Amino acid sequence: MANEIDLGEYLFKRLREAGARAVHGVPGDYNLTALDYVEPAGLAWIGNCNELNAGYAADGYGRIKGVDVIVTTFGVGELSALNAIAGAYAERSPVVHIVGTPARGLQQRGARLHHSLCRGSPDDFSMFADMCSKITLLQENLMDAETAQEQIDRAVVACVRHQRPVYIQLPADMVDVKVSSAPLGVPLDLTMPANDAQTEHAAAEAILERIYHAKQPFILVDAGASRFGMAAETNKLIKATAFPTATTPFGKGIVDETVHNFHGVYGTVGDNLYVGWVKECDLVLYIGPFENNVNTYYFKTIPEACKTVRFDEESSQVGYADGEPKRWSLHPKGLIQRIIDQLDKRRLNQYAEYPPLPDLRLDLKNLPQVQKTDALLQDTFWKRISEFFEPGDIIMTETGTPSTGGRDFVLPQHTTLINSGVWLSIGYMLGASQGAALAQRDLAVDGGSRNGRTILFEGDGSFQMTAQELSTIIYQRLDMIIFLINNDGYTIERLVHGKDEVYNDVAPWRYLEAPSCFGAPTDGSYNTMTARATNWGELLDIISRDEFKYGSGLRMVEVIMDRMDAPVILKRLLESYSASAS
Amino acid sequence: MANEIDLGEYLFKRLREAGARAVHGVPGDYNLTALDYVEPAGLAWIGNCNELNAGYAADGYGRIKGVDVIVTTFGVGELSALNAIAGAYAERSPVVHIVGTPARGLQQRGARLHHSLCRGSPDDFSMFADMCSKITLLQENLMDAETAQEQIDRAVVACVRHQRPVYIQLPADMVDVKVSSAPLGVPLDLTMPANDAQTEHAAAEAILERIYHAKQPFILVDAGASRFGMAAETNKLIKATAFPTATTPFGKGIVDETVHNFHGVYGTVGDNLYVGWVKECDLVLYIGPFENNVNTYYFKTIPEACKTVRFDEESSQVGYADGEPKRWSLHPKGLIQRIIDQLDKRRLNQYAEYPPLPDLRLDLKNLPQVQKTDALLQDTFWKRISEFFEPGDIIMTETGTPSTGGRDFVLPQHTTLINSGVWLSIGYMLGASQGAALAQRDLAVDGGSRNGRTILFEGDGSFQMTAQELSTIIYQRLDMIIFLINNDGYTIERLVHGKDEVYNDVAPWRYLEAPSCFGAPTDGSYNTMTARATNWGELLDIISRDEFKYGSGLRMVEVIMDRMDAPVILKRLLESYSASAS
Repeated sequence: MANEIDLGEYLFKRLREAGARAVHGVPGDYNLTALDYVEPAGLAWIGNCNELNAGYAADGYGRIKGVDVIVTTFGVGELSALNAIAGAYAERSPVVHIVGTPARGLQQRGARLHHSLCRGSPDDFSMFADMCSKITLLQENLMDAETAQEQIDRAVVACVRHQRPVYIQLPADMVDVKVSSAPLGVPLDLTMPANDAQTEHAAAEAILERIYHAKQPFILVDAGASRFGMAAETNKLIKATAFPTATTPFGKGIVDETVHNFHGVYGTVGDNLYVGWVKECDLVLYIGPFENNVNTYYFKTIPEACKTVRFDEESSQVGYADGEPKRWSLHPKGLIQRIIDQLDKRRLNQYAEYPPLPDLRLDLKNLPQVQKTDALLQDTFWKRISEFFEPGDIIMTETGTPSTGGRDFVLPQHTTLINSGVWLSIGYMLGASQGAALAQRDLAVDGGSRNGRTILFEGDGSFQMTAQELSTIIYQRLDMIIFLINNDGYTIERLVHGKDEVYNDVAPWRYLEAPSCFGAPTDGSYNTMTARATNWGELLDIISRDEFKYGSGLRMVEVIMDRMDAPVILKRLLESYSASAS
Repeated sequence: MANEIDLGEYLFKRLREAGARAVHGVPGDYNLTALDYVEPAGLAWIGNCNELNAGYAADGYGRIKGVDVIVTTFGVGELSALNAIAGAYAERSPVVHIVGTPARGLQQRGARLHHSLCRGSPDDFSMFADMCSKITLLQENLMDAETAQEQIDRAVVACVRHQRPVYIQLPADMVDVKVSSAPLGVPLDLTMPANDAQTEHAAAEAILERIYHAKQPFILVDAGASRFGMAAETNKLIKATAFPTATTPFGKGIVDETVHNFHGVYGTVGDNLYVGWVKECDLVLYIGPFENNVNTYYFKTIPEACKTVRFDEESSQVGYADGEPKRWSLHPKGLIQRIIDQLDKRRLNQYAEYPPLPDLRLDLKNLPQVQKTDALLQDTFWKRISEFFEPGDIIMTETGTPSTGGRDFVLPQHTTLINSGVWLSIGYMLGASQGAALAQRDLAVDGGSRNGRTILFEGDGSFQMTAQELSTIIYQRLDMIIFLINNDGYTIERLVHGKDEVYNDVAPWRYLEAPSCFGAPTDGSYNTMTARATNWGELLDIISRDEFKYGSGLRMVEVIMDRMDAPVILKRLLESYSASAS
């Protein structure tokens, strides 16, 4: 029988149902009473040091667990988180942003309250929501007990289905209004509705026609393959067709890299043979495109529409050289599964000779034997470090040299790579790593299969942006491995402009003192291991220790690199960037 | 003869002319080329660890120096700074926010660029400006060399005159467009236009009539007295009339506290005699009101309009018990000066007996002699610490127990108090202190009279928000004294709600290790002094040392206080808050 419950209870129970096990945020006087409902609903409260970091953490958690929550306070809190929420929107991370707002009566009469502009108008209480509306999928203001439950359900469902942030305003006096518990008896439908079977069948047939007739086909996988929930289907398609496959930079990590037909990140500044071969392809299956300058090497890797089958979030399209493209309003997950189901492998053209495309595993094997005194160079570091990775790992590469270098990773099966492909806000990755490591732990608790490590690669300049979140990692007793790339400043910016200018310098921190400063316990309740490496001998000595590889707690190695060193690919990319700056 | 110069040169030269000597910010690929013009224009580049902190620093610098500049990059950078800019808008701090945006051609064709939402529309490049327009006084987008100089001048003048942030978008390809240097020959007019003499005279006469007839007059000074540039006139009026005077919480520090007719911060939760006396006043000169819940003790200290002469930014108003108020569109600075000029002191009523209002100096003198083992209690700490202050000091109190406790300060002449009275964004004050300390140094270099200290009082929870800015203080070799109040979490929030809840906890840092972690030199090029105090004996032992009081560099004392201790006034205020929550 249905009882009355407080709206706060309903809200957090729905969030738990959707998959969240943690709520990130910062307390504030307009959200405090709401926070009383977090733990009773089976969610852990994770207090971050500030709201931007909380937003990043929620984003990282959401990318692993499928949804997360951030709670901030009206005005000061929500605006501080705004950049993180915009990033989640741009890159599609499922974050429910709950803002504790003043009591309804105060809002309606335009009371001049702290954390507002105090113009004495009800607009004072809608202006921040207006700002947030530009960078969230939908917005709900819970002003009425009659509609609040529907509003919550709508927001949570949209967030999970579309993997994008939503925004909920919760007035302080709505937290404990009574609502019926009955709707909790009806589970949220978090899955996308199925496609119309007939349309899907027709589209699959048209696409299969192109697949059967392709003489030089190619599969290009972008981040949408994971964001639109079709990573498994994408991998099945790659295996079923055995077509040569690459990812975009942002799509890196989605494809099982151990299959023989995987050929790394495709980009125009790399191997010229590769570029020439792709140019001559007569079919590209282009899965989940996220097109922008950095993800497409300045728009040069976008395949010609006439030879492309393009799988977007809400539609798919087949291009033809001799006619109009065909387009269907279909979710790509179901469509790709149907293509696999209807695929007649006997009708696939076989290569007389498999094309000579890059083989990352072979490249890694052929690297010269490392010498102990070898410098830690960007051009080999990112390849060699792949030997450290193991199935189950979450590997995170911050924007800058790590995200570019990470394109060279050779990933084992069942790893997750998190990088940034659109928003590129430095400082994101440390906050996100707190969320990802927590999500990984929560998945294990939930009976999931994960028990891998969380491994973060971050530069010094980026680390300084959000450094205090190391304290949350420690305080929450998370397991984390950090490779801190210390190259004395904003190297990526030095490469763009102002090589020796002061504006590309950062203060010289003692990074390895950070865990102690940020409160790492010394009573044995949590392990902390720190070390510095200036060459390969020192690095291997540290990272090959079991304590580092398989230990618990925080393991942090400071990797010293030259301030002007960068992966060749990054240098070339930035040259092409300068050339197309306007 | 006029030459052609680059627009970037023009921009930063105008900013220097307006009074800036430093530009805060973070480099990014859309602003890098602009940064080349900073140092040649005679401005120091201050690279902060992140944009929010840069915004806070620019705000702090602006409050001391009259103007400052923050440069961020499009999207990620500007959004991160948004909360700081909104605070500058709400509290009136003169910050010019320059955002480096993509080249015009890219914007116009809606190129899908990183740091944008990549929807492929020109809107991608105006949406963040739309958001910023809500929290800045004016916005200029420098898309055209023909108008760019006028736009810059308009923005800089408005920022300085109105002490509010303005927003300038600078496309990457506009930085080096050629413009005439001729306008630089015409100085910017940064002062407010004079009032119409006749109107001002009439208003002054009307106000003087009220002053002459007042039997129980009172002057209440709020933050507008400094924001509207009339702190000097306000103090002259207080001395000339000898009327009993108080400030609001946000107005604290504007009035010379050594005059006999100064009676502290007026609030309804303090001395009941005081409250009763003010209630019976027949005239209140209410100077520069900033009305909101926290600055008016929940709207209870706002004087009745019928007995009030109110000096706002653009108008002044006299209320009457028996008729309509009179209102003039006048800037209050000129009007107050005219009142002083026209004042006939013989016509002022003399008190038979001066009212028995609080005397902070006497209260301080009457405090019991401190014992070495006395605990550091909130209720006496803020009073006693006043003995540490000296003329020339900038004293900064972070929102929370410091800003509330700071109402008890007894300030020497020529001190500046910075607190937050509207926006109350915790974490603000450390960033702002970097800016204030730099501005103080720049004023000394400019030949100003300042050579006082910058003294920051900040709680542990607030410190964690923006802690990394300590590294900028160190890297820029700034002189700073920090009292870090460690009371184990968000005490002010515990008092509001959730006394023992986990959401009011913060991670236990080793705060005194922060200077070393953040790169404090050990080569003698910069002094760092750290200490912890758990009672008055330890505290006095530290702060009475010459090295601490008059030394250079960073001096940081961790003051241990009880987690639930708070100034009585704060406890009472929060009780009244709960009572009026809706």
